[in-house]
Amino acid sequence: MALMDAQAYRNSLKRLRPRVYALGEAIEDVVEHPLTRPHVNAAALTYELASPDPRNPLVATSHLSGSCVSRFLHIHQSRDDLVHKVKMLRMLGSQTGSCFQRCVGLDALNALYEVTWRIDDKYGTQYHENLRRHLRYLQDNDLMSDGAMTDPKGDRSLPPSRQDDPDLFLRVVERSSDGIVVSGAKMHQTGAVNSHEIIALPTQAMTAEDRDWAVAFALPVDAPGISFVFGRQTNDSRRLEGSDIDQGNPLYGQVGGEALVLFDRVFVPKERVFLDGQWEFTGPLVELFAASHRQNYGGCKTGVADVLIGACALMAEINGVAKASHIRDKLVEMVHLAETLYCCSLACSYEGSRLQSGAFNVDVMLANVTKLNVTRFVYEIARLAHDIAGGLIATTPSEKDLKSESIGPLLRKYLRARADVPAEDRIRLTRLIEGMTGGTALVESMHGAGSPQAQRVMILRQCNLAAKIRLARKLAGIGAQR
Amino acid sequence: MALMDAQAYRNSLKRLRPRVYALGEAIEDVVEHPLTRPHVNAAALTYELASPDPRNPLVATSHLSGSCVSRFLHIHQSRDDLVHKVKMLRMLGSQTGSCFQRCVGLDALNALYEVTWRIDDKYGTQYHENLRRHLRYLQDNDLMSDGAMTDPKGDRSLPPSRQDDPDLFLRVVERSSDGIVVSGAKMHQTGAVNSHEIIALPTQAMTAEDRDWAVAFALPVDAPGISFVFGRQTNDSRRLEGSDIDQGNPLYGQVGGEALVLFDRVFVPKERVFLDGQWEFTGPLVELFAASHRQNYGGCKTGVADVLIGACALMAEINGVAKASHIRDKLVEMVHLAETLYCCSLACSYEGSRLQSGAFNVDVMLANVTKLNVTRFVYEIARLAHDIAGGLIATTPSEKDLKSESIGPLLRKYLRARADVPAEDRIRLTRLIEGMTGGTALVESMHGAGSPQAQRVMILRQCNLAAKIRLARKLAGIGAQR
Amino acid sequence: MALMDAQAYRNSLKRLRPRVYALGEAIEDVVEHPLTRPHVNAAALTYELASPDPRNPLVATSHLSGSCVSRFLHIHQSRDDLVHKVKMLRMLGSQTGSCFQRCVGLDALNALYEVTWRIDDKYGTQYHENLRRHLRYLQDNDLMSDGAMTDPKGDRSLPPSRQDDPDLFLRVVERSSDGIVVSGAKMHQTGAVNSHEIIALPTQAMTAEDRDWAVAFALPVDAPGISFVFGRQTNDSRRLEGSDIDQGNPLYGQVGGEALVLFDRVFVPKERVFLDGQWEFTGPLVELFAASHRQNYGGCKTGVADVLIGACALMAEINGVAKASHIRDKLVEMVHLAETLYCCSLACSYEGSRLQSGAFNVDVMLANVTKLNVTRFVYEIARLAHDIAGGLIATTPSEKDLKSESIGPLLRKYLRARADVPAEDRIRLTRLIEGMTGGTALVESMHGAGSPQAQRVMILRQCNLAAKIRLARKLAGIGAQR
Amino acid sequence: MALMDAQAYRNSLKRLRPRVYALGEAIEDVVEHPLTRPHVNAAALTYELASPDPRNPLVATSHLSGSCVSRFLHIHQSRDDLVHKVKMLRMLGSQTGSCFQRCVGLDALNALYEVTWRIDDKYGTQYHENLRRHLRYLQDNDLMSDGAMTDPKGDRSLPPSRQDDPDLFLRVVERSSDGIVVSGAKMHQTGAVNSHEIIALPTQAMTAEDRDWAVAFALPVDAPGISFVFGRQTNDSRRLEGSDIDQGNPLYGQVGGEALVLFDRVFVPKERVFLDGQWEFTGPLVELFAASHRQNYGGCKTGVADVLIGACALMAEINGVAKASHIRDKLVEMVHLAETLYCCSLACSYEGSRLQSGAFNVDVMLANVTKLNVTRFVYEIARLAHDIAGGLIATTPSEKDLKSESIGPLLRKYLRARADVPAEDRIRLTRLIEGMTGGTALVESMHGAGSPQAQRVMILRQCNLAAKIRLARKLAGIGAQR
Repeated sequence: MALMDAQAYRNSLKRLRPRVYALGEAIEDVVEHPLTRPHVNAAALTYELASPDPRNPLVATSHLSGSCVSRFLHIHQSRDDLVHKVKMLRMLGSQTGSCFQRCVGLDALNALYEVTWRIDDKYGTQYHENLRRHLRYLQDNDLMSDGAMTDPKGDRSLPPSRQDDPDLFLRVVERSSDGIVVSGAKMHQTGAVNSHEIIALPTQAMTAEDRDWAVAFALPVDAPGISFVFGRQTNDSRRLEGSDIDQGNPLYGQVGGEALVLFDRVFVPKERVFLDGQWEFTGPLVELFAASHRQNYGGCKTGVADVLIGACALMAEINGVAKASHIRDKLVEMVHLAETLYCCSLACSYEGSRLQSGAFNVDVMLANVTKLNVTRFVYEIARLAHDIAGGLIATTPSEKDLKSESIGPLLRKYLRARADVPAEDRIRLTRLIEGMTGGTALVESMHGAGSPQAQRVMILRQCNLAAKIRLARKLAGIGAQR
Repeated sequence: MALMDAQAYRNSLKRLRPRVYALGEAIEDVVEHPLTRPHVNAAALTYELASPDPRNPLVATSHLSGSCVSRFLHIHQSRDDLVHKVKMLRMLGSQTGSCFQRCVGLDALNALYEVTWRIDDKYGTQYHENLRRHLRYLQDNDLMSDGAMTDPKGDRSLPPSRQDDPDLFLRVVERSSDGIVVSGAKMHQTGAVNSHEIIALPTQAMTAEDRDWAVAFALPVDAPGISFVFGRQTNDSRRLEGSDIDQGNPLYGQVGGEALVLFDRVFVPKERVFLDGQWEFTGPLVELFAASHRQNYGGCKTGVADVLIGACALMAEINGVAKASHIRDKLVEMVHLAETLYCCSLACSYEGSRLQSGAFNVDVMLANVTKLNVTRFVYEIARLAHDIAGGLIATTPSEKDLKSESIGPLLRKYLRARADVPAEDRIRLTRLIEGMTGGTALVESMHGAGSPQAQRVMILRQCNLAAKIRLARKLAGIGAQR
Repeated sequence: MALMDAQAYRNSLKRLRPRVYALGEAIEDVVEHPLTRPHVNAAALTYELASPDPRNPLVATSHLSGSCVSRFLHIHQSRDDLVHKVKMLRMLGSQTGSCFQRCVGLDALNALYEVTWRIDDKYGTQYHENLRRHLRYLQDNDLMSDGAMTDPKGDRSLPPSRQDDPDLFLRVVERSSDGIVVSGAKMHQTGAVNSHEIIALPTQAMTAEDRDWAVAFALPVDAPGISFVFGRQTNDSRRLEGSDIDQGNPLYGQVGGEALVLFDRVFVPKERVFLDGQWEFTGPLVELFAASHRQNYGGCKTGVADVLIGACALMAEINGVAKASHIRDKLVEMVHLAETLYCCSLACSYEGSRLQSGAFNVDVMLANVTKLNVTRFVYEIARLAHDIAGGLIATTPSEKDLKSESIGPLLRKYLRARADVPAEDRIRLTRLIEGMTGGTALVESMHGAGSPQAQRVMILRQCNLAAKIRLARKLAGIGAQR
Repeated sequence: MALMDAQAYRNSLKRLRPRVYALGEAIEDVVEHPLTRPHVNAAALTYELASPDPRNPLVATSHLSGSCVSRFLHIHQSRDDLVHKVKMLRMLGSQTGSCFQRCVGLDALNALYEVTWRIDDKYGTQYHENLRRHLRYLQDNDLMSDGAMTDPKGDRSLPPSRQDDPDLFLRVVERSSDGIVVSGAKMHQTGAVNSHEIIALPTQAMTAEDRDWAVAFALPVDAPGISFVFGRQTNDSRRLEGSDIDQGNPLYGQVGGEALVLFDRVFVPKERVFLDGQWEFTGPLVELFAASHRQNYGGCKTGVADVLIGACALMAEINGVAKASHIRDKLVEMVHLAETLYCCSLACSYEGSRLQSGAFNVDVMLANVTKLNVTRFVYEIARLAHDIAGGLIATTPSEKDLKSESIGPLLRKYLRARADVPAEDRIRLTRLIEGMTGGTALVESMHGAGSPQAQRVMILRQCNLAAKIRLARKLAGIGAQR
């Protein structure tokens, strides 16, 4: 089957029947609902820009079928695949100024591809075959798959098996010859409500006691027992006002439509199970997924920063201060920070290596370094954007005021800067910058793909202090007496 | 007349008839309207907590009348007054977690008090007397006065007199024996819509050509020809939803209700004029006002940070991670940054000095240093808050979902952390942190009291490089041959 | 007895006979030896600038005798005394560009003044009287007293009583009716070799098991059994080369001549003992001393920074780049950071409070905040100095080359920048900056008055998280159910 | 001819007769002189580790001869060559903990290779052929070539032709059919005194008026008229004391032995001239060289940081604090910063591209980003090292004291930490850290390959703001009316 285009994607969503709630009500059609539409648009762009041309950055050749498939459904076959991923993400970030949601499913597929191989290799199970079959299905039908990892986790000082409520980590509640039944939830699921499929995988390394929580599987979003509750984003209500300008980025929104996914005794047929009980593989699975996901942030966030830098440069022009040395210096700093993030994503990709299954993964140390920088630099970029953009981004009257007969003309008179640029353009820019630097947009950079402490733990684990100590001993002339 | 209490303040607002617009419509009653009510509440607290007790930090003894008056209407008579101001601001910041709006009027009064003295001293004018009379009126009636400084400014590369539209800086358009007529606008006016009075003063140092733009005066908010357009804040629409939890800080909001104030040929009686044409005094006026206003930010923002730090510490407890060393270290860092800001505000106050008029003002260098630190540290504090608070602050479902019959029970099941704390408490905390670290809350720290570059210019001007060069020459043994 | 002048100070040192070692040899005369002379000069300046004029910042009125005494020997009687201390330190820092060593003795005296009062109050001992008598002796004879705190500490994971070698913390090894005998060492003793007296006090809070290590006392530097080993500083050998230019700051050196002080069964007469065994007072003593010592660093380091900023501004002038916007911006940043440190020192002083003994001490939280900022900002100031000063500070040929007949003329030709400034002036400046930003000068800012982690622990202890949590609860509407 | 080994390199240096001055005297033998010996050792290691094995990272296959040559003499033929360079630099940095000096000659050769091609292409000159012949000579004889770029520059506000003294930029003072005669100087020449050859190239983009200063050429270090004056480094005198421990890194020193190179009417035969007067090519030449040189710093500095991190980790072990969470966190931070630099160097290499001449060069934007990060992160790494290492690195007594009979035993008693590690080991480590974080070692990171402002200018030039503005316009819905 061919690649879908944007319209086909939208149509395919309309054929699904997921139970989605937002602001206390059910959403019937995520394609049309103003809260979810921007996220559908962003994902749709990934379909729109893909074409069956080998030079197209959004496609790759499937190692399963040899067909041209979406790169978002591709198992990396080389370091080049890893690099192409980063460049694709930057390009899409710069086109949407937002999140296009599809990396997480890609990373889940790649991590499971390797780990199922290892489980089968040890136990003679069929998980890898299940995964390959499912992957082929996704590729052949060009489906969007969410990767669902983060559990609610309850009291963080306790493992899954000791929680007061066992459902606080997603778990197997029943097993039969046909499959398993699962209950629990996954949080912060970017793009979940406009995906076709969900792949769930464990959120952390488990121990033997947590065997029932060591589970991975795939399901269509409208499988019986699954519900979604759409999370609030900064200024989400503006979408409901029918505003255009006040949304800032009315087409694509600011970030990626996160939802809480609830599993209430959901049946998973056995051929869609990829892990059930082999707890010792949860550590490697999480580590592979995390590294893969952390790779991304110097791609997409750099693309998004390109937009923000452009918006600030344009604002400076409109305000008549584009040549001020301190403005130029701040723009340079924003570029510098963004390109540093890009360097990190590129480096961890180019330094990737072949795994046992034949797939490729990034350099784990450098991928963690990438994400840790994101948790700092994106904030500093936003701070610099606020500096350049001016106080207006916090005090601009509403679009309705701007368009009102009584007050609108005066607003247009007073809110313009350079005489040759209409106030409305300046306000549009104000709203774009406001949206790109507000709460949700920043939090995603902090916690997406794991909190900073998770990266620090990995960096400590990867950095081989013993080898560095040997170097120091040798140069200082200290014997190895101890 | 006695100090007003909170109820008297609210009642007094209801008697005024300012023309206020928001979201395209007129607001009839700012006390009751959900968009403006939190700001009224915050200002009302400054009335509620004041009492005619000399030990009360919110009052002072008027040097005009000897009566006990609001400290927000007091001309600083000593360094202690400057210090008490800072401590009062921190206390109110910690009680509201928000902006209580009244410092700007106080700073305008103090700056004008000195500069009118100097103008009269040079020209034999009556501005100082006008200002004293107005001040007495404010004190005797315990009124809230907005200080209005920032003009729209149009093209920043041009002075007022060269703008395409002369109204882009507020100006005198007509003069008569009774008074003057002014046109123009003032932007970002915190607390303007719930003040009784506005004092306007110039936004920057003017030259002889800009004589008509060198104007300062006071007017009641409902003077004919004045209108207000209320600015949008981050998540302002949630107030209209009738939400409680989702507002985060439903009582006081996040920041201080900024409005655009429009002056359309407004008549100012001559006894309410404090400056008209003496352009050479605009520089000192701006400098005095700016230093005085920059002093504040290590007071109120530290108080606000106290709330945010508490919220994060509580979130860590609820999540079961309060003892993790990295969490404690981040809390320490937040405290450290906040207290550094407080040190700066205190230092510039304690190092204040007596002006020609007998009033006291802060140390100008150190006040600018204070604000420049605010433009950095408040952002870093917010970043650390995001780190501790977790991704939930960007993805929590709405209050309506939480309270819905269909989905609410599951949300309460899955969104709690430690077993002994209800999910709703955790969500309330999430919303509080979200609101305190979102867009508007940060921008205020960047641009309130002037952008960072304004502070840098003042620091350069104040730092006496020549004296420092002499120190270096002497120690390096370099003769003063040049 | 009157205040000593610089010559009297030098003469008094020549009359002492401390055992001082450096570079493997004994130093006979610290006044003349090139390694120690700069430090003597810096201390001598504190004598030279003091005069019996109440307006002189280096003197105060003794609360013991009513006489005019050195401020370095004064027990703070008011907040003003605390503030004067900071201003005196900044002034001396700016005059020497270095360390003048005398604050540590002052801080030891003040800390012991309070704690001996408390011990006597509890136990009826005579320590406070001993201390007062000793203080009077120091004041009357205008002596310089070192405060010796840091023990070698051996294995940091073990308390004094569990160390492999009990001497790794200074301790009482014998007691008699006449006094005590102590053994051990104190490290990093700034100014020790050119002091008249040493006051030793414990390095950390002790427990009951560490009773013998809970000891404080005073001794003259040439008491039998005491020896000093002078530490190496960055580029100390240049002093032995007879260089002038290459020393950078030939008169005062870069920092304060630290020595290791060894105590080999040293007898202390009982009237010079201020603590012996009352272990529960070691915690408060360390805390008081540390806060008092941490107060200083925003004074002296800001003064030193004034010199460094001046040196960089002059270098920019000589290089012909003084007007480049990026240079000016870096100078502003250096000033901003230095003045922030100054704000912190001032604030902790102005916010000081009266202790039980009647002496005053700084605000403990803010003093710790001060020092923690020093461990960062001094490094950043040095980094910016390197940026402005140019690579020359790392590659300038030696003074001997500059003065050699063969190569000197070419060096003078090529190492000058602006045509009207001789190369030698530029090189002198280069060496000054090199010295002020090299290793030792920075390390002192990191570890003097305790390492950053010590400050962080104190900030956590002082910050009252519980009160902040209550503020957050109230605003978020969370009941106090737990 | 084969690759030289370390001994052959040393012998070859002994056969040369450069005029080298240091500390006012001539150095006869750079191999043996204690000031220069460590730098010879570091360069010698690049010979020692190279072997004619294609898998050896220090060699490459010459595109001129097909022979195995030193990678330091290789024109990059692919992106892989660029990456191998970075990895070689990191490895050598981690083996020496210092600078091994050879990258600058490599970068000069590569930049000239391309630019001579372009000049010849435009003018039909023979520069490229000259360069190829010279390169072949270097490769065949395995010579070390310095790349000499930085001119004294005099008054930075003036171009070469307007300087008071025309020699302040190196220039052609005479031309004949046989060659040219040059005068002037080059500063900060790393490795110059122990190189065989020097390649000089212009320091900045020149204009038509500066034609005589647009010159590039190669000469042996002992060509008539060339002299070297060796620059002072931090603690260089310790080498003259015959110390071992006190040098910190006695074998390789701290950084790369910079010298001032003087050219006094030096004749250059025409076949060794690569540029003479084609001023319009100086801009591209400088840009190519600079990008290539900036690429390096995330290689070598990361290797050096590996040693420093190891030294700090070992110090923490010896002090008994290796498990303290704040220590581990600081080590992680050091690793994170170092690996970020490595990412940048790798990324600019992997993203390199083919030039007109067939050689490859790095991505210019990302190479500048690399170096700009180095000017910050290396300082922060040093600061963290000071934090972990403790105050001892600024106050340790000398090696002579440690070894003295009188005071040595007590030093060994008191300067050890953990009981099972001798004090001498701890002191060795102290000295290693001291040397790696002192003045010179940091300055090199700031100014090597150009000052930060140079990188900022390039980033601004490369960042294509116009394209970013278009992205912002599109998303904000702003027409392209202007």
